[in-house]
Parts: sequence; C-alpha cells; structure tokens
Amino acid sequence: MSDDYNTAIESPCRDGKFPPDSVGLVQTQYVTLFEPPNVLTLDCGATLGPIQVAYETYGTLNEDRSNAVLICHALSGDAHAAGYHTPNDRKPGWWDIMIGPGKGIDTNRYFVICSNFLGSCKGTTGPGSINPETGKPYGLSFPVVTVGDMVRVQRELIRYLGIEQLLCVIGGSLGGMQALEWATRYPKQVRGSVLIATSYATGAQQIAFDAVGRNAIQADPNFNNGDYEPGKGPRKGLSVARMMAHITYLSDESMRQKFGRKLRYSDRFGYHFDSEFDVETYLDYQGEGFVNRFDANSYLYVTKAMDYFDISAGFPSLDASLARVEGRTLVVSFTSDWLFPAYQSREIVYALARTGRDVSYCNIQSDYGHDSFLLDVPALRRLIRGFLHNLLTPKEPCPVCESPCPTRQDTAQDGNNIFSGRHRIDYDTIAELIEPGSRVLDIGCGSGELLCKLIRSKNIRAVGLEVDEEAVIRCVESGISVIQADIDKGLSALPARLFDYVILSMTLQVLEFPRFALCEMLRIGQRCIVSFPNFGHWKARVAHFFQGRAPVTPILPYNWYDTPNRHVVTIKDFRDFCKQFNFQIVREIPLNERGTVRLLPNLLADEALYVLENSGNTPSAQASVSIAE
Amino acid sequence: MSDDYNTAIESPCRDGKFPPDSVGLVQTQYVTLFEPPNVLTLDCGATLGPIQVAYETYGTLNEDRSNAVLICHALSGDAHAAGYHTPNDRKPGWWDIMIGPGKGIDTNRYFVICSNFLGSCKGTTGPGSINPETGKPYGLSFPVVTVGDMVRVQRELIRYLGIEQLLCVIGGSLGGMQALEWATRYPKQVRGSVLIATSYATGAQQIAFDAVGRNAIQADPNFNNGDYEPGKGPRKGLSVARMMAHITYLSDESMRQKFGRKLRYSDRFGYHFDSEFDVETYLDYQGEGFVNRFDANSYLYVTKAMDYFDISAGFPSLDASLARVEGRTLVVSFTSDWLFPAYQSREIVYALARTGRDVSYCNIQSDYGHDSFLLDVPALRRLIRGFLHNLLTPKEPCPVCESPCPTRQDTAQDGNNIFSGRHRIDYDTIAELIEPGSRVLDIGCGSGELLCKLIRSKNIRAVGLEVDEEAVIRCVESGISVIQADIDKGLSALPARLFDYVILSMTLQVLEFPRFALCEMLRIGQRCIVSFPNFGHWKARVAHFFQGRAPVTPILPYNWYDTPNRHVVTIKDFRDFCKQFNFQIVREIPLNERGTVRLLPNLLADEALYVLENSGNTPSAQASVSIAE
Repeated sequence: MSDDYNTAIESPCRDGKFPPDSVGLVQTQYVTLFEPPNVLTLDCGATLGPIQVAYETYGTLNEDRSNAVLICHALSGDAHAAGYHTPNDRKPGWWDIMIGPGKGIDTNRYFVICSNFLGSCKGTTGPGSINPETGKPYGLSFPVVTVGDMVRVQRELIRYLGIEQLLCVIGGSLGGMQALEWATRYPKQVRGSVLIATSYATGAQQIAFDAVGRNAIQADPNFNNGDYEPGKGPRKGLSVARMMAHITYLSDESMRQKFGRKLRYSDRFGYHFDSEFDVETYLDYQGEGFVNRFDANSYLYVTKAMDYFDISAGFPSLDASLARVEGRTLVVSFTSDWLFPAYQSREIVYALARTGRDVSYCNIQSDYGHDSFLLDVPALRRLIRGFLHNLLTPKEPCPVCESPCPTRQDTAQDGNNIFSGRHRIDYDTIAELIEPGSRVLDIGCGSGELLCKLIRSKNIRAVGLEVDEEAVIRCVESGISVIQADIDKGLSALPARLFDYVILSMTLQVLEFPRFALCEMLRIGQRCIVSFPNFGHWKARVAHFFQGRAPVTPILPYNWYDTPNRHVVTIKDFRDFCKQFNFQIVREIPLNERGTVRLLPNLLADEALYVLENSGNTPSAQASVSIAE
Repeated sequence: MSDDYNTAIESPCRDGKFPPDSVGLVQTQYVTLFEPPNVLTLDCGATLGPIQVAYETYGTLNEDRSNAVLICHALSGDAHAAGYHTPNDRKPGWWDIMIGPGKGIDTNRYFVICSNFLGSCKGTTGPGSINPETGKPYGLSFPVVTVGDMVRVQRELIRYLGIEQLLCVIGGSLGGMQALEWATRYPKQVRGSVLIATSYATGAQQIAFDAVGRNAIQADPNFNNGDYEPGKGPRKGLSVARMMAHITYLSDESMRQKFGRKLRYSDRFGYHFDSEFDVETYLDYQGEGFVNRFDANSYLYVTKAMDYFDISAGFPSLDASLARVEGRTLVVSFTSDWLFPAYQSREIVYALARTGRDVSYCNIQSDYGHDSFLLDVPALRRLIRGFLHNLLTPKEPCPVCESPCPTRQDTAQDGNNIFSGRHRIDYDTIAELIEPGSRVLDIGCGSGELLCKLIRSKNIRAVGLEVDEEAVIRCVESGISVIQADIDKGLSALPARLFDYVILSMTLQVLEFPRFALCEMLRIGQRCIVSFPNFGHWKARVAHFFQGRAPVTPILPYNWYDTPNRHVVTIKDFRDFCKQFNFQIVREIPLNERGTVRLLPNLLADEALYVLENSGNTPSAQASVSIAE
C-alpha cells in the first residue's frame, strides 16, 4: 500500500467538512461472535471463540437488504476502508479512492461493509489478542487460520448485520481470495464477486517471497518464538520482511520513474553501508512504518493463510471447484503486476467460462504493479461501478453510460470495430440465424452492440471476446459478459462445443491467423457464423485491374499503408478454403447494402456471411497450424 | 546459481579420466599484486595493498598472445570457472557448461582466464582477509570497493600474465558490468566484450533487493558491525538475504514448473510455521548452502559495488561514456530475466549504436530467468562461439557454420525472409546503388545475405536489424553485426542521419506500420532503399479480376489465409503514397526476373525498388503516426 513518503499531507477537512465525495467521519465498530459454546471450528481442526470482529459500514442498507457490498482487505489492511476517524486525520481509509458518494463503489447506492479479518491485528481476534483461557496474548498458540476461516467469520458478521445475501463481494490480492472463497462456498449468498489482482491458488514464487519474509521474522532473536510484549518483538525482522514484500507490490517501471538512481542526502557516494539511495530510504521508511502498525505474529499467520489458499483443494479439478459459483464474476488484473500476474487471473476466468459461469475479465494497462488496485486507476473504477450497477438494477439506466441498454452507436473507439458508422446489415442476418436461448460467443465483440441486439431479440446467453480495453470496459458497463482476449493466441482454455454459436463478424480479415481462428471456433462452437468484406466485389476488382491500385472501396475503406486488414479474401477463395480444410458450409449469404445478393455473389456482394459446421474431420488447430505466441 | 538440490551427483571422473569436453583437473593459483609502496588507489580514495588475487587459466596462450579471454564472475562466483579441483569433485567450475575443449568458449582455441574479484571471499583480498597492519580480519574497516576497482585489479593480473590485449572480456550480471568497465576504461586492451544479462547502471529495483539483503545481514545481532569470527557471523541474516536474492535469479515460470504447490514431507498441511512447501525447503537449502560458502561482509561489499555501478557516471551522457569503446560488443539478454530485464541490455546496445560502435544484440528466448546465463542455453553458446571466432580469425572458416563467409543460401528458417530459394534480383540492384565504404542498415536482414554481399563488394560498415532469434544468431556466427529488434516498434533510440543507407528489401509488406517504418528510415538514414512485391503486376490483377480470387503469384506466393504479408501495394499506390507524405523518390527501379522493366512498370514489374530521400518536410514519425506499442 502506498504511503505518503516525501509529502506532508494535511487533513482534507475544512471548516468541519470533508470533500463531497468522502463518506466523512466514520467509526470502527466491534462485535463479539462465536461466544462459547458456539465456537468456530477452524480448518486446522481447532476451535476458537469468542471472536471479536472489527468492521465499518458506509451508506445505507436498502429496504429489501439487497444492496450490501462486502469489501475484503489484503494482507496488511483493516476495517477502515473509507472516510476519516477524526477531522485531523491526514489520510482516509485504505480504499477511499474507490468508496464514497458517487465513487466507483457508490455509497449513495450501496451499503458497504469492510471487516478486519481473523488472524490480523487491527481489532479482530488474532495472535496478539488475549487468550481468555490464559489471560495472556495467544502468540504462536493461536491456531493457524485459513482464508476459509476468515470468510466463516465474515459470514457470521453478515448474518449479525441481518443480511441474507450480499450484492457483491469485492477484494484485491488476498482480499480477492476471500471473495473467491465467498463465491464458491456460499454461492447462494453472493450475487456477484469482483476478484482483483488475485489467484485461485498461491503460486511457488508468491510462497517463496512469503517464506523469506517469515524467515526474516523468525530469525530475529526478539521474535522469541512469538512470545514478545505488544509493540516490541522482532522489529528488525518484520521490517526486512515488509521491505522485501513492498518491492513485490511495485513494478520495475514505477520504481524507475519514482526513484531511479537518485541519492537521498548527497550528490556523491558515501562509501559506507548506510542507506544512500532514495529507494533505500524509502524502503527503510516503509519498513519502520509497518513495524509500528502491524504485528509480527499476525504477519506469520496471514502470509501462511495466503500460502495455504487453493480454491481447488479437495476438488477433482479447478473447474469442479469453481462450478459452485452461481453469481456473476468480474476478474481484473494489471499488466505490470508481477506478483499476481495476469495469467493467474485468466486461470480463474477460463475455469468459470468452461463451466458456463457468467464471467467478465479485463487486464488493465497500468505501470503501478500489484499496488495498482489501491491507486486511482480510472479503468478499475469504471469496471467496478458498471459491474455493480448491472448487478443491482440491470434494467435501469446506468449512471455511467446513461444508456438503458447498450445500443450505443459510438463504437469509434473500439479497437477492432472498423465499421463504425456503417449500418451493420450482417447484424440483422446474424440475428435471424440464431436460435432463441442459445449460448453465443462473439469474437471481436467491440462494445457489445451485436450481443445486446441478440440478448434483446433472442434472449441468448452471451459472452463477448475483445482485445481492446476501452471496449471491454464498455461491455461491462452495459452488463454484457466479456473476456479480454486475443483470438490470434487461441482459445485452448475453452473446451469443445461450449457454445451453440461462435460469431466472427467482419473480423476475420484483421486476424493474424484466420485459419487457426476458424479451427478454434469450430472446436468450441456447434456452429460458426463468419462474415467478411468480399475482396471479389467488382469495385475492388476494377480498382485493381484498371487503376492498378490496391482497392479502396466502401467496405474496404483503407489505404494500403494504414489498413488494419491483414488478409484480403474473396467469396471464391473462402469456398475453396472451406473445402480444403473440411469446414462444412451450411449456408452462404452474400450481402450488400440492400440485402441478400442472389446473382453473381462474388462480383456483386460487398460482404459475405457464412454459417459453418465442423464436419467432424477438421484437423485440430493445434496439430495443423503453427502459430507464434 | 543453480545447485544440485534433489539430485545426488557423482563425480564424472571415470578411471581417472574426465569427459573429453572438460578441461579436467585444474588448480586455483594465487599471486600477490600491489605490494607496497605500489598500492592501489581505490575509487573511494583509500589505498589498498598488498592484494592477493586468486585465478585459474584454461587452454594455452598462443605465440602472439592474441587469444586471451577473460571471464568475469558474478556476485557469488569465484576463480574456479571450469574443470575439477579433484577427481572426486561432484561438480565442476561454475561455467563449465561454456568453457572447455570444443565448447562455447573453446579451450583448444582460447587461453581462458578467470579471477576472483576484489572484495570477495574466494581467495582474492576482501573484508575477510587479514589486514597486515593489524593482524586481524579487515571486517568493515575494509574500504568500499567498486566495479572499477575490481577491474583495476584484473588489469594488473593480466599484465602479470604478460598479456597486452585481451581478445575478449566476457561476463554475466555483475560480471557483465566488469566487462563493460573493461571495454570503456581500457578500450585499447579489449578487442571484444560480451555483456550478458547486465545493465549499464544498477536500477532502483535491483538496488532495492540488494538493500533489503544488506538489511537482513545487518539486522542479525551476530553481524556485530562486521566483527565476527571467520565462519561465524550473521548466518541467519545472510541466509535470508540469499533466499530472497535466489528468487530474483529464477522466473515465475521456472518456479511454477519446478515446485508448483508441492509439499515436501507430507500430503497435507501441517498448520505450523516450519517449511512445508517444496519451494520453502529448496530456499532453506539455498540459504544454508550459501552461508557455508560465502562471507556476510563480502556480501555487503559486493552488492554495494553493484549498486554503485553506473558506467555513465562522470560523463555528460551514457553515449559519451560508451563512445570510448573501440572493440566489438555482443550484448545478450533473456526474455524471462526480470532482475536485469531486456530493456537494460537495449540501453547499452542503442547507446553503442548511436555512437557508431560495432554492437550485436540478441534477446534469447528462455524460461529460466536471470540464471539462464549459467545454464545450458544453446543459443548463448552459439552466440559466444560465433562472436569469439570472428574476433580471433574473421576470415577463417567458422567451426560452427563451416562457412568462410555468410553466403549461405539456406534462409528457410529466417523469420521474415519469405523469398527463400528465389534469386534475389533486387540484391544486385541494391549493390549497384550503394557507395563504397558507406554506413548501411539493413532492416529485416535475415541471416545477413545482402549485408555480406555488400561487405564483400562495397566494403560497407554494415548493421542488420532482425526480429528472428535464429537469424540473429546466424548473423553473429557469420561476423555480421546485428541488433534484434522490431521495426514496427520504431527506432526512436537511434538518432537522425546515423546511416548513409537504410535498406528495407522485400519487407515493407509484412510490417504492421509501413508508413511509420518509412518515416523512421528516412529519419535515421540519408537515403532509403525500399523494395516490395508489386501487387499491380498483371498476373495479380488477372487473378483478381477474372478469377475473383486474392492473387497468388510467384512473387506473392501465399494463400490469403497463411500469408505473412499484411499489406498489398502497387507501384502506383507507392508513388501516390510518397507524394502524399513528402517522401522524395530519387529513383524508381521496376524489376522482374530478367532485370529492369522499362515499359508499363505497374503492369509488368513483379517487384519494385525505390531510392527515397527525406525532402526535409516529412512529418516526424512520432507526430504523424500513432502506433500501438
């Protein structure tokens, strides 16, 4: 978590008033749960109770108690997610940037809850708490807790607050693990979950960093096997652990920009072993600050809970584990996060997609590493805001896009949609071809215009695939499930026959590996619908033949040097191609602006639409097409 | 450095014989240099002497003493780079995989020297050595040393060995820094240098990890301000430092493959804080092993030397600093190395290129992170072998490719060269256009066929640019300077007018951003030579017009779905394009298989060659073309 190193911040409270988008003054509340004999049985087999829980709430629970959003904090967080504890606080709660009136998690609309988790040291029972049986701090006699245990305690808190079902559980990093635990263990109690910069199971590198941190603490003689006075203990060891962990929360790029090789106190080297570089003194500051606000024993327990986390444990597969999810899921990663790399998010996304669960995914471009989820990243704010809106009131106008349904014509910013402004005649034809209630994947879905049309007219179960971040965010804002992915890299994570229809409308020509894409589509779909601009149209031929130029036509409107189209194909080419590779053509629909073309299609149609089926002996994409990753 | 964790290795010595590609039994030698009063003045201002230096040599110095190769080791290395100290050694020297008869650094051809550097604890004077003035170990009274100091000591050793000039200095990581120091500080004494997985200046993230390691050592009460008995001292602190550093030497991918979430001793969690996961016990092993072979004080000194390293310090710019280099340079990085990322290698490469120095660069595809340079990576072996060969005997047949000069016809494996097998008529034309002795950049140079032709016929100063790793390696093997880079990402690192000619032969059509590329070419070159297949050729037009197909012709030999060509362009299009963007056409040479086409070029030429000049008002590439990075 970023601290205000280098800058003196004054309280934003002026004349007793906080900024209008702040939840203002808040208070941490405490409740004691699991009073004996109703103690909690932990994953390790031990029992624990009573358990004190620290929590805060912001906003108002609505009448039908349907607007509760639970925030799960990360390793060193606490219940104080937003607002200020006193008018003199220089800093607000740890996720104030996201939570407040009109913010990403809008406290005018949602009742927001954040509780400190079990095993921590911020008000909820942990190893630093007094063991009622001995009258002394638990220390290492505190039982080892898991993410599952943390969530059990949160669930009891929610019950205590009188909430049956959460609108959403949101968390980043270790908080995302809790959110995933919620969504799988209590699926009926969670309408949606947002998993940010997290993983379904802690990986080897993450465990390694955690283990080194624990070693640093345990190596400190003041650790004394966990038996130290509050506020004392292994301060140096904990500081080293935190300094190292802090590096993993940043990115090489952000450290380069922030610190570079700047010296802190001098313009020349001191030739000694004290901290000299700016980055060294920054880490010293982080380490010292952390030691004053966090307990070393809790650090052991919390990192251990993280290392133990594996949502697939006890299940035959990850898919079987995630198949329990019933609500919608939004998964978010950050391009520069190397502690929880994007592939770990994608593992969750594709497991949910494979089991037919409703999942959206965005890999946000950001230089700020793992810490991005705590910083002011507009894309994250829009994604969460849009996702929550569609969870609570899917049919109401979204306050973000102010559109009752995603019929937006403005697709100019879409990465791959090169037909902005043009009436998409192929959309109407595609709509006619789709059976109501089908499962449909639209590859290169842009902002979701076609899928929205199909949802309204055919009540399909829609999933979009899109490369462009802005388009992905718009889909989520519009309530359309979308996965950020590049078809040119394949869809090997998805199983055969997952969809009734896979659509590739006016996108074939921009792909790097069109044959590979069609193989993949015919594998994962029962039927494929493909449309493309017909390079065989007479205008294209005439421009080429008589003028001796690379054709520029209404449907191929680009100059040779700035076209996004990598491949030009005619109807005749496409027929041959399907024959050669055993793609069975079920229907061929040549189109121009007035509709279907019946005569001389290769000459008169400016686009062509095909319905394809797998003939059963299509060579598998992997086997037949070699691609560069 | 990887250790043989998990595997019991027996000595490879059988019947008193080592494998034929081993240098066999070797001995570390010791020499005392800088005897008072001829002591060494260090960068910090202190003086030091006498200095004992530990070193090993392999192979034989030739008569004219021109075949000496100096190996510089990394942080924890030593003089024992190859072979075995006893017949019972289970493990050979740290770079035995690279050094030996017939290996990458062939001891049949080269006289190889490796010395332990100043400040270490492996035989050369360091903080653990006895201070002759006090009769006690130096401890922290040892002066802080720099990479410059290390190299001063190496230079004295080389002089002692009677060598005036080194054929090559080779090093990875901190060893690469020493090699770069050699090449810049003693340019006349270095004919070539190989800089592997290194940086011209330690960056913020690297300093941060080093600083945390030092903190871990200094936090250990047994550190006692560096005053501890040999073999004792801050064992726990040093172990923590090493465990953390070890993570940075691997990659997430390699840790995932090697350890995953495997438990070491059980199939279920122990719910305690001892090491349980395989990766934890592996790190314990690494930490413990390191403590037994390395001195904590040395760890402080060596990491500090690394943090201080900045070859540009004291110079107005990096370019001014690297302009001192006179020999040839090979720079190598690894795709998965996140401790010394590829961009740090590229900073060196482009600074050398900007100042007209002879530099080659390859970013080797490898999953093994920073440690890749110590592992069996065939591409690295080939690069070093080829580079050394061309340093020593540029005109002799290379034992690798067995070719006296790179005239190989076999370009089938080249990434971008799509004209394999076809006689390149444009090559002859290009050769006629080039002034003798010019500076020439060939973009998409493949294995260097055209450049080789130009070197032989026009004695040009040639640099190639190529995306494909295999082609880059072949260029280096053939003695052609080549930089692995993608023109689609721009050449903003290179200054205006660096080359007399920039060539883009039959590559324009495969680029993503051809206009951007031409802007860049016209910026960095006085003149550009561009050739491309002419889509206006009658065969292409006829196929399109009459057959209604995307043309497949001898010069456009691909089907629509598997063509690497992203852009089709005719002669007429290209003329318009040049006019529109103020690219001045100096010459237009339409070609077909029989030579220049004089009549109806757009109809009859199957390729076209242009000489372009910057008219002076070409919009800059950055300003006019937006590209996706």
